[in-house]
Amino acid sequence: MKTQQLLNYARGEWTPGDTASLTELPSALDGSPVALTGSGGIDFGGMARFAREVGGPALRALTFHQRARMLKALGLAILARKEELYELNYATGATRKDGWIDIEGGAGTLLSFSSKGRRELPDAHVLLDGQLEPLSKSGLFQGQHIYTSLQGVAVHINAFNFPVWGMLEKLAPTILAGVPAIVKPASATAWLAEAAFRVMIEADILPPGAVQLIVGGVGDLFDHLTGQDVVSFTGSAQTALKLRTHPVIQRESVKFIAEQDSLNASILGPDAAPGTPEFDLFVAEVVNEMTVKAGQKCTAIRRAMVPAAVLEDAEQAIAAKLAALSVGDPRDKVNGMGALVSRAQRDSVREAVAAITAGGARIAAGDPDSNIGPDGGAFMSPVLLCADDPWACEAAHDVEPFGPVATLMPYRDLADAVKLANRGKGSLALSLFTHSGEVARDFVLGAGAFHGRMLIIDRDNAKDSTGHGSPLPVLVHGGPGRAGGGEEMGGVRGVTHYMQRTALQGSPAMFAAITSQYIPGGPKQVIDAHPFRKRMSELHIGDTLKTASRTVTVEDIEHFAHFTGDTFYAHMDEEAAKASPIFEGRVAHGYLILSFAAGLFVDPAPGPVLANTGLENLRFLTPLYPGDSMRVELTVRSKSLKSEETGVVRWAVEIFNQKDELVATYDLLTENVP
Amino acid sequence: MKTQQLLNYARGEWTPGDTASLTELPSALDGSPVALTGSGGIDFGGMARFAREVGGPALRALTFHQRARMLKALGLAILARKEELYELNYATGATRKDGWIDIEGGAGTLLSFSSKGRRELPDAHVLLDGQLEPLSKSGLFQGQHIYTSLQGVAVHINAFNFPVWGMLEKLAPTILAGVPAIVKPASATAWLAEAAFRVMIEADILPPGAVQLIVGGVGDLFDHLTGQDVVSFTGSAQTALKLRTHPVIQRESVKFIAEQDSLNASILGPDAAPGTPEFDLFVAEVVNEMTVKAGQKCTAIRRAMVPAAVLEDAEQAIAAKLAALSVGDPRDKVNGMGALVSRAQRDSVREAVAAITAGGARIAAGDPDSNIGPDGGAFMSPVLLCADDPWACEAAHDVEPFGPVATLMPYRDLADAVKLANRGKGSLALSLFTHSGEVARDFVLGAGAFHGRMLIIDRDNAKDSTGHGSPLPVLVHGGPGRAGGGEEMGGVRGVTHYMQRTALQGSPAMFAAITSQYIPGGPKQVIDAHPFRKRMSELHIGDTLKTASRTVTVEDIEHFAHFTGDTFYAHMDEEAAKASPIFEGRVAHGYLILSFAAGLFVDPAPGPVLANTGLENLRFLTPLYPGDSMRVELTVRSKSLKSEETGVVRWAVEIFNQKDELVATYDLLTENVP
Repeated sequence: MKTQQLLNYARGEWTPGDTASLTELPSALDGSPVALTGSGGIDFGGMARFAREVGGPALRALTFHQRARMLKALGLAILARKEELYELNYATGATRKDGWIDIEGGAGTLLSFSSKGRRELPDAHVLLDGQLEPLSKSGLFQGQHIYTSLQGVAVHINAFNFPVWGMLEKLAPTILAGVPAIVKPASATAWLAEAAFRVMIEADILPPGAVQLIVGGVGDLFDHLTGQDVVSFTGSAQTALKLRTHPVIQRESVKFIAEQDSLNASILGPDAAPGTPEFDLFVAEVVNEMTVKAGQKCTAIRRAMVPAAVLEDAEQAIAAKLAALSVGDPRDKVNGMGALVSRAQRDSVREAVAAITAGGARIAAGDPDSNIGPDGGAFMSPVLLCADDPWACEAAHDVEPFGPVATLMPYRDLADAVKLANRGKGSLALSLFTHSGEVARDFVLGAGAFHGRMLIIDRDNAKDSTGHGSPLPVLVHGGPGRAGGGEEMGGVRGVTHYMQRTALQGSPAMFAAITSQYIPGGPKQVIDAHPFRKRMSELHIGDTLKTASRTVTVEDIEHFAHFTGDTFYAHMDEEAAKASPIFEGRVAHGYLILSFAAGLFVDPAPGPVLANTGLENLRFLTPLYPGDSMRVELTVRSKSLKSEETGVVRWAVEIFNQKDELVATYDLLTENVP
Repeated sequence: MKTQQLLNYARGEWTPGDTASLTELPSALDGSPVALTGSGGIDFGGMARFAREVGGPALRALTFHQRARMLKALGLAILARKEELYELNYATGATRKDGWIDIEGGAGTLLSFSSKGRRELPDAHVLLDGQLEPLSKSGLFQGQHIYTSLQGVAVHINAFNFPVWGMLEKLAPTILAGVPAIVKPASATAWLAEAAFRVMIEADILPPGAVQLIVGGVGDLFDHLTGQDVVSFTGSAQTALKLRTHPVIQRESVKFIAEQDSLNASILGPDAAPGTPEFDLFVAEVVNEMTVKAGQKCTAIRRAMVPAAVLEDAEQAIAAKLAALSVGDPRDKVNGMGALVSRAQRDSVREAVAAITAGGARIAAGDPDSNIGPDGGAFMSPVLLCADDPWACEAAHDVEPFGPVATLMPYRDLADAVKLANRGKGSLALSLFTHSGEVARDFVLGAGAFHGRMLIIDRDNAKDSTGHGSPLPVLVHGGPGRAGGGEEMGGVRGVTHYMQRTALQGSPAMFAAITSQYIPGGPKQVIDAHPFRKRMSELHIGDTLKTASRTVTVEDIEHFAHFTGDTFYAHMDEEAAKASPIFEGRVAHGYLILSFAAGLFVDPAPGPVLANTGLENLRFLTPLYPGDSMRVELTVRSKSLKSEETGVVRWAVEIFNQKDELVATYDLLTENVP
């Protein structure tokens, strides 16, 4: 591979760092130069302004659904050129399987956020949070929380281990939120991040200013940050501390999301003796987590905890599996593990191993000083440590060897295991191998507050499991304390990190104007044509059908009861109904009311409304007695396209009695032709 | 009032600070000593340990509902002794009306959280966040986010202005979350906070270690904090910065929630000319916010913005109202405004006014150097400033006079008003006086990201409005940037700040064990007796009724259609139904399926199930064609007591066809006898 100079992408232009700033990035395989990188001479303040003044307004002009569609296009663009990226992946030391997590996992994260965005976010600019809060009896003054896009820039500081996924798992929620980003990949593997970034720019999907790239130091960028900006950091606790204590971050209350490597634990349940499927699953997972990506994962298992009685069995089983693993050139499929990212990284892993052994652990398998492969390469064998007295070995809980190393340790009982797990002072991921619901419950209640993600694996779900070390786009990724205290992804949760929550107070009419939704109590327009005769594009928010009214007779109730079989006493027996604490006499069935309501508002002929697909938040508010009448107001609440051919209309249904009291309210969902 | 020595409440004991640490707290009215306060000699590390080892486990052993009931009892205890507190309130300079916000507002916040806790949280220890996330086709591996209580201590650092409310608005969500607290009130009004705290201790409602009190400096408390702890701070930006940059806060990723006073804006809409109700409402609100609590509110209006054309009208109207206001002894009802908290506070307000006038504003009404009332008192007249060129007067947007002072300023057009509002760099509260939905929408979309709460007031809702400056327990209180970047309250949202969110991955059976809820796909027990015959206490999570099956005929469909009036073509016309993109022929009505389902599972005789009150998350998954049969599985999903007499059971309803395909699923809500 020839030595290529990586370029910054600043203010819409590919820009080289000045010559004085360039450094050479070595291959993990043999130390030969792969690329030159640097960002000297870049106008970092100008990048921040460009993001705020050009990228932000362009993204905010789009709806969530429009942004979601861009994410899908970006993901497909990455997948279409994935082989170019796999080729660049090997020099990072990673196998093709490691690269799959990074490259296809990254593209998949874009696709997942695209899908979540279209299914769970409105086709609008404002996201509602929670329900209306009634603040007055009249209903004219209410509360509603909303999220709007931050008007600043997101600065993403990424780790070296997943140059593609690490970039895309941050970009997906940021762009979906309508916020522009400046991406700063770790230098050690920046050539792969730059290539993936270039694929996105060349696909020409995003508006100008939506994304920029810094290949090198961030210069004085932090001096230009404000309270509308977000810094999302992934990396070491030490670097996180340096960045988060930057005076501007503190003074301006800049949102700082940190995701730090942590001392993640995996626990073999007390029920999972050798011979059980859970024992074998645990052993396989520990080995897998030690060796995938040569153990360079923030989520990797660093501490493997087993009942004291089975320590020897576990140690032997793990050691045997490690011995069967071949380490070497990641391009050769025979090798299950490639190289660490650099010799410097390998040195730091060896130092960490030395610190843990100095703290009282012993080497149970592997040789930290092993030298495999070509001179200049960064290969080493996986190393299993064992802390026979885990409470005496502080270093096993505090020092993280960021490589193919884990420490095995015995626990006395489940309470001891909980305490040992929590001794890590906060982690990203924990796994528990148990077939006992009781063990799972006690463990999660005891340890939940210390761990961002907890995986419970047993014989039933192991083959479906996505594994201890894999963050998923639909689940939050992050953890308290040592893990940085941040959260990323988690579907819509991750999007809201780039938005501001605001509590609105006002009238339903104002909320309707702000949110582009019908809000109960807000303005309605009664329309002439039946709304079932209109395509989605012809329906307007607030369009309302007022139906005729229908009297519900005691005969209707009896007829319905005998037809359906629902002869509940409150409908059938005047005396018994009166005796109930709720009713004054026989009442109409809730389902009779719903059915009559549909009879009142449904327009029978074929048309753009294809089907009733669901119903939400139904509440029966006032009983309907024989002789009462009912009428319906059916109002377009919101509309959401699912594809070119189909979409969902949400209708607010309000059923009133002859005194105009609300009998029932619900949201009706229909599948419609756009 | 005699000079009383305030006591710390440390490790369950009332403990005086040592003599060397004592300082004298002067009355706002005449400078005479009210109390001595100090915390010298207290073992702060011991307090943190006591909270974690005694208070935390005791609180976590209770369910959300049990904790919610304690909050109600605490609120009632405060109300029962409110007159004692009102008496102590005057020496802070506050009127009875000001004290009402503090004392009864504080108790009301406890009651509100109690109510939210019982209505919106489960009667359990774990809070579910969002829906199940399917992670595998088999359904045996899924995701579920949960919240569990943090296992540390909450340190509450409160402001001087609302010694009771400020303590209780933080304690309510903390205790509801199951987390013990150490409260440190501001010294200037600590006698009132200590008295309210004492009322709670004497009511003997909370378990030992749940709350502790520091009347004085916090010593080395911060050195003992960990990643399981939370610091919630209310006060100045300067103090917040000092606390949040404490090395332990940064190193351990201690959650730090800051709520700082900010340069809150109120905007008169461009539509709200003199003579409109909105103009008068705006004028009244500006005056109210300047004078309630002598303007010492984090949320008070500091910047009042009006269309340039009406600046003079607004200035005159506000000045006239201020001139009519009497300032003096708060015990005398004739006075609309009392004293500032201290002469030091008055000095700092005067300095701020000088800075803003030096920046280009002029004094439009009032005299900052006014000296009212007795020597030693801290009275001053309210001061209206006017910045005729608001973009030239930086100080009007950056310097906060924390007293009865606001700056009036003109804007050119709505876009200019948005920019001026956002020039405050983040605020807690903003109000907009407009009768135009379009103005409201444009303003909120342009300014939402900068403001934590936005109030839109017009002629329709003004009489119901709770006012610009009042945070409400059900709405979030906090704001970005200058306002500190924190969030408090907001109902359940505020509770989750004291909990850790964890993404669980596992099987439905494990989730059921952990969450004490039935999870679809998890274990069910088919029971013999009909569940409608059982009281809530006799029903177990997972108890299931499997019904007989019923065939749905074309005659049923026709009968139902003609009975209800719902003759939608998909039910009535084989050819038209076939032509739809969804159905293969005529299908049963969704409401027919629901009605028949009830007919299958309802047990008719009077019993502990009183009524069907609602239905949620209904989805129709597989069409039911004539000749298909249907059966129901009705499973107890969760139970929640509303009172001694009544409660809610949530049932998972699953309707299957003869091929065991899911036809529909929903949650059914019933009102039950406990």
